[in-house]
Amino acid sequence: MVAGIEARAPRALGRAISLVERGGPLAEALVARLQARTGRARLVGVTGPPGAGKSTLVEALARREREAGRTVAVLAVDPTSPFTGGALLGDRIRMQSLYTDPGAFIRSMATRGALGGLAAAAHDAVDVLDAAGFDLVLVETVGVGQDEVDAARAVDSVAVVVVPEMGDDVQAAKAGLLEIADVFVVNKADRDGADRMVADLRRMLAHAAEAGGGGEPGAPGAGEPAGAWTPPVVAAVASRGDGVEEVAAGLEEHRRHLEASGALARRRRERLALRVEQALKARLLERSGGRAGLAAAAERAARDGADPYRVADRLLRELAHRPGPEEDAAP
Amino acid sequence: MVAGIEARAPRALGRAISLVERGGPLAEALVARLQARTGRARLVGVTGPPGAGKSTLVEALARREREAGRTVAVLAVDPTSPFTGGALLGDRIRMQSLYTDPGAFIRSMATRGALGGLAAAAHDAVDVLDAAGFDLVLVETVGVGQDEVDAARAVDSVAVVVVPEMGDDVQAAKAGLLEIADVFVVNKADRDGADRMVADLRRMLAHAAEAGGGGEPGAPGAGEPAGAWTPPVVAAVASRGDGVEEVAAGLEEHRRHLEASGALARRRRERLALRVEQALKARLLERSGGRAGLAAAAERAARDGADPYRVADRLLRELAHRPGPEEDAAP
Repeated sequence: MVAGIEARAPRALGRAISLVERGGPLAEALVARLQARTGRARLVGVTGPPGAGKSTLVEALARREREAGRTVAVLAVDPTSPFTGGALLGDRIRMQSLYTDPGAFIRSMATRGALGGLAAAAHDAVDVLDAAGFDLVLVETVGVGQDEVDAARAVDSVAVVVVPEMGDDVQAAKAGLLEIADVFVVNKADRDGADRMVADLRRMLAHAAEAGGGGEPGAPGAGEPAGAWTPPVVAAVASRGDGVEEVAAGLEEHRRHLEASGALARRRRERLALRVEQALKARLLERSGGRAGLAAAAERAARDGADPYRVADRLLRELAHRPGPEEDAAP
Repeated sequence: MVAGIEARAPRALGRAISLVERGGPLAEALVARLQARTGRARLVGVTGPPGAGKSTLVEALARREREAGRTVAVLAVDPTSPFTGGALLGDRIRMQSLYTDPGAFIRSMATRGALGGLAAAAHDAVDVLDAAGFDLVLVETVGVGQDEVDAARAVDSVAVVVVPEMGDDVQAAKAGLLEIADVFVVNKADRDGADRMVADLRRMLAHAAEAGGGGEPGAPGAGEPAGAWTPPVVAAVASRGDGVEEVAAGLEEHRRHLEASGALARRRRERLALRVEQALKARLLERSGGRAGLAAAAERAARDGADPYRVADRLLRELAHRPGPEEDAAP
């Protein structure tokens, strides 16, 4: 399978991603094997709420990369993405050329995976595509919710896509968006309110830059010097191709900033820490006998009216003395 | 504080919810103390994407409860909700009567909390409001993302609010919505596409009922007999009050179904299992020295090129022999 991945054989890539989606010892062994080959691809995320036009932008960025003679992989970690198979006929036809292009690979990941969660599977899948030697790996995620934000962190640069209609909502949710955006895209910018939204976002970002970063502790941007990177705000109509060059230029500029400032290495360490946390949580769930084991423990506890924290402590004491099946495989 | 909670004193309730939001041993002790007093309130969730009009519906349901002479608590676990303080002036004025009504309590929870996560804090806060003796506890959550879906599971009955504009997105995301909806609300039903959306949802739900439930394993609905409950689909214009009675009736009908079928007890056990899982994850993170401890471990591991799973296994072996600070407080 490793040879197939290195040859970027679609069948091997598809099987490898299915494997990491399921998780388990074989998936982990694959991730360990591929580790030394990762770190070469540009990893770019495109995230935002449903209906913002993320997949249209992803497609445009992918085509642009292909036209420049470089290879590209698209991973759609988004249950609402047309890439995931829920596509309308029009979307499917539009994307046809990418599906049949040997220099492009498209794969969706709509399931939550077993114990490890969607974010862990997304990080592992990005490792597979990075190790395969694609020049660019594009990851599309729905940008609401912690699991999705964690999935979005599988990349080096994140474009956050919003649309004018969500003006007030975006205003309210700005903390979460500021936390992960390296480039802001106001898509469908031919609609009412686009100019105001672009201006609002710019004002907000300038303010956050003055305030010294704006990232929350633990966010990819946390700890970076104040003012080091202020995300550009691009008005786009991705379905017509308008603004796509500017988005690509913003992402490339951010990439140069990451490399020049040393932030790239720091982001990658933060990403490893996040993945270790995810792996720890998955291990714990395995050792508890999975969700069924937890339900049985909760059932017993409910009879004597215990609260969730007491039940957790009891389980933890048991688990500390019960090595999991994965221990045997550890060196 | 427990006496203040029982008296439904706003100050005591506010402090108790701030406490569970922060988490930690005192918060856990409070949850344990209140446990025996929970289980009396009707727990209703209102969830859906940003901009669907969830808070308008929540407000209408809250008013209706007050007009019937019953007490109500609103917990807005939604960074985009007008209840959370990001309200436009119009929203604030509209909600004024609830804020000044001694039989109503409104509290928002926009932060993610410390180690335990938003969902754990939401479940604990619902315990506080339930133990306080409110007749109805309404929980508003953004219905995208795993953490938010877990937060939505803090209740017995969930109304999922969608709007006509998101037709195709909802179609694509139907699996996630089907999983948690007990009542569907097509809000802003005076807009184009509402009739089609109502019809689509009804067809989809009928199909899921035939197929035998439609819930994923581990979902609140999983394991319930096929056809036991098919969520009603209500067309509403919550801002005018249209459809609010039908939504309330649907929720009451679902409540009767839960009690008559024994599903209420099962849902509560499943909820306890979910909370135990959340508590276990939080414990593990505490013992790893929090995110900083994990980052340091990842840093060390990165030097010798270890993959995340190997790092997690190393940490887990260390942790098994290192009791956490919370052990001392355990009986």
